[in-house]
Amino acid sequence: MSQDAIRRHITDHADAFLADLDAWLRIPSISAEPAHQADVRRSAEWLADVLRRTGFPTVEIWDTATHPAVYAEWRSEDAAAPTAVVYGHHDVQPADPAELWTTPPFEPTRRGEELFARGAVDDKGQVLFHLLGLRALLSTDGRSAPPVHLRVLVEGEEEVGSTHFRGLLEERRDRLGCDVVVVSDTSMYARDVPSLCTGMRGLTYCQIDVRGPDVDLHSGSFGGAVPNPATALARLLAGLHDEEGRVTLDGFYDRVTPLSDDERDLVASLPFDEAGFLATAASRATHGEAGYATLERIWARPTCEVNGFWGGYTGAGQKTIIPTDAHAKVSFRLVHDQQPEEVEAAVRRYVAESVPVGIETAVTFYGDGVRACRTPLDDPALQATARVVERVFGGPVRFTREGGSGPEADLADVLAVPVVFLGVGLPDDRIHAPNERVVVPQLLLGAEAAALLWDELAGTLRRA
Amino acid sequence: MSQDAIRRHITDHADAFLADLDAWLRIPSISAEPAHQADVRRSAEWLADVLRRTGFPTVEIWDTATHPAVYAEWRSEDAAAPTAVVYGHHDVQPADPAELWTTPPFEPTRRGEELFARGAVDDKGQVLFHLLGLRALLSTDGRSAPPVHLRVLVEGEEEVGSTHFRGLLEERRDRLGCDVVVVSDTSMYARDVPSLCTGMRGLTYCQIDVRGPDVDLHSGSFGGAVPNPATALARLLAGLHDEEGRVTLDGFYDRVTPLSDDERDLVASLPFDEAGFLATAASRATHGEAGYATLERIWARPTCEVNGFWGGYTGAGQKTIIPTDAHAKVSFRLVHDQQPEEVEAAVRRYVAESVPVGIETAVTFYGDGVRACRTPLDDPALQATARVVERVFGGPVRFTREGGSGPEADLADVLAVPVVFLGVGLPDDRIHAPNERVVVPQLLLGAEAAALLWDELAGTLRRA
Repeated sequence: MSQDAIRRHITDHADAFLADLDAWLRIPSISAEPAHQADVRRSAEWLADVLRRTGFPTVEIWDTATHPAVYAEWRSEDAAAPTAVVYGHHDVQPADPAELWTTPPFEPTRRGEELFARGAVDDKGQVLFHLLGLRALLSTDGRSAPPVHLRVLVEGEEEVGSTHFRGLLEERRDRLGCDVVVVSDTSMYARDVPSLCTGMRGLTYCQIDVRGPDVDLHSGSFGGAVPNPATALARLLAGLHDEEGRVTLDGFYDRVTPLSDDERDLVASLPFDEAGFLATAASRATHGEAGYATLERIWARPTCEVNGFWGGYTGAGQKTIIPTDAHAKVSFRLVHDQQPEEVEAAVRRYVAESVPVGIETAVTFYGDGVRACRTPLDDPALQATARVVERVFGGPVRFTREGGSGPEADLADVLAVPVVFLGVGLPDDRIHAPNERVVVPQLLLGAEAAALLWDELAGTLRRA
Repeated sequence: MSQDAIRRHITDHADAFLADLDAWLRIPSISAEPAHQADVRRSAEWLADVLRRTGFPTVEIWDTATHPAVYAEWRSEDAAAPTAVVYGHHDVQPADPAELWTTPPFEPTRRGEELFARGAVDDKGQVLFHLLGLRALLSTDGRSAPPVHLRVLVEGEEEVGSTHFRGLLEERRDRLGCDVVVVSDTSMYARDVPSLCTGMRGLTYCQIDVRGPDVDLHSGSFGGAVPNPATALARLLAGLHDEEGRVTLDGFYDRVTPLSDDERDLVASLPFDEAGFLATAASRATHGEAGYATLERIWARPTCEVNGFWGGYTGAGQKTIIPTDAHAKVSFRLVHDQQPEEVEAAVRRYVAESVPVGIETAVTFYGDGVRACRTPLDDPALQATARVVERVFGGPVRFTREGGSGPEADLADVLAVPVVFLGVGLPDDRIHAPNERVVVPQLLLGAEAAALLWDELAGTLRRA
């Protein structure tokens, strides 16, 4: 098998690959918005079709209580080959604020090396490069099946916390048994710094509802005499952090595994350009928990973010009311070994205790939360993946983590195997934001790495 | 002149009066919403027509930079008679949340004694009862003109802070010269407690805009490492009050005239039913500045209220972003002798100083603010009005204040005359809220008081 031949195949088939990606990206599979439920299903069906077209003998749509996952299987001709599960997701984030997109989020637009669309890199582009890579491997090698028993599992509710994913894994454990999970839903440190993600943060996400008077009140007739739910919610949200940027929830840090000196050295050794980071973050300053560097804050420290809030009058001009209610979306990124259910209990206690008499509260968590995930740096599958990335991207591979969250901890737990990350996104891809993009050459390199990965893993895991 | 005859005329003409009011209330003259600009003008034109129909020889529409005011004049046949200006407003509050109205806000609906519509009591009903009262007086008395030189000034931007009203008063001072201003835009203490308002709070209202990253950011990729504008705004809003419910702005209380012991005794002597107040406020508890009773907090203490806020993701489900911006509507009720411009400067300083590095802020005040207004209890015009209210409503008149705000201080200052309040609203009329109503018998008693007021004022002010 020649890497050059694989690369040639990928280059020759790039247009067809991008045409497929274009078609998929036009399906607004927004899992968070009930109005798009049928689109998420359409996205699953589209993916099932393309998996069949790629040659997978078994392709199934697995329904959940909300959005369907897609499963495909292609056994190796070598019965003793190891089994790999490729994980990704076909749902996408909402596209609002729509007016900030240069071109419409579901009309993929190429400008130079960049392809702009919601889902371009998170995660449709990174799921699809696996299929191009696999075809390249099989075409150039004359094989009729992959060198590992290959299973693909692409879920439809990653952007809403993978609520039913753990249940799906448990229910289908017999179909998903494997030796390694390859996740393609992460980024490299920088375009010129080949890197492998080795862990992700967990997540728990809730809506806090605060209720005051049963109707909007005239702020003159009643102002100063009854509790204002907007003020109560502002005070509650403000109190979630102390002056040092630490989260104040009771016991929040009790289970946090502290960074070792070695880990802090590894982070410190990475080239970090604060001006570049701020440009990527479209921000004017860094800010966060006292005593930690920016990368540590993102990769290895838990956080609390207000993702949105609303209440009362929000129109033009002025309306002098005490609003009847106020609401916030609040999420927590978790690190090893925080347990979502413990954090959730602490949030409920905090909210109940933080409002004045006369204010009623409700806290609704979306799903069960997601634990953080870490793969040890000496894991053989991770080392094999690192060798492939080095061959494709050139230069030594650096090890990073990601601040984002996915169901990786569930994959590792339920399937009881290591999780490795083959991701080719870049930090300034604007995932979850307007003008999400993917850098097309990164996708093609991703396909090349995907083509090389199965032989490397087969050899490593067979030996292991 | 017989009070019985006046009352009979009012009863006989109540249906025609209510038909007029119905027509006026159907015009959604929402001054805060640009989409309703033409409706505010239509409301002014409707009022001008009905003033002409009532017999006012001079009726004019006075344009401002935003919404027009209506002016009418009817000179007494007695050249030496005093001059009174009746003040009211024809604009109304926005009607949202529309879904909480039992019947549509601009389709007036009678249920028993109550008439439900936006503007029913604030302030169209209370402007219109003057015309019924005046016709009653003239019909039963056989006079062809009122006993005072009567001027009517009904503005169109009271609900947006009367931004151009002071300028209008200054510009038209020669047309508005008078001996007393009668404001009909307030409430009685209770239906069975005849009362006269003797003062109102001032108001200044702003929007605070907080800007963080230039785009919504992925809260995993960036969470914990850059300042979150929603958190920054929540902390800023939370910091506006201390733990004792006092406003923390620098110098906020410096000019506040403290309540005298006599004033506190007067407030304490009023029948106050906390359960009834809470029912009216649709609230479960009172809350406010430590050391003050509920009525004192509303009538005589300045306040800060968050009228609304919004930012980030507010849709269904979850979206894991750090929002690009966050916004709040914040207003301050002021008491004698606070100056709006000083409070505004303190707000600007506070906002600028209260956010972390990397967060940008802007504060926009709507208009110039409104100072508080107080009329001394021994003012002859106030005493004359009290006598009329006593004759019409029965029982001794109690003196109150209102927590709301209007341009009364400007009327008193620019025209250099006392302001008296003839208001028949009730505390549970839900002004500014869904299901605003007016109690129809109160309106008819208001008309009766308006009929009796001019002779009483003519006698008093001529003697004075």
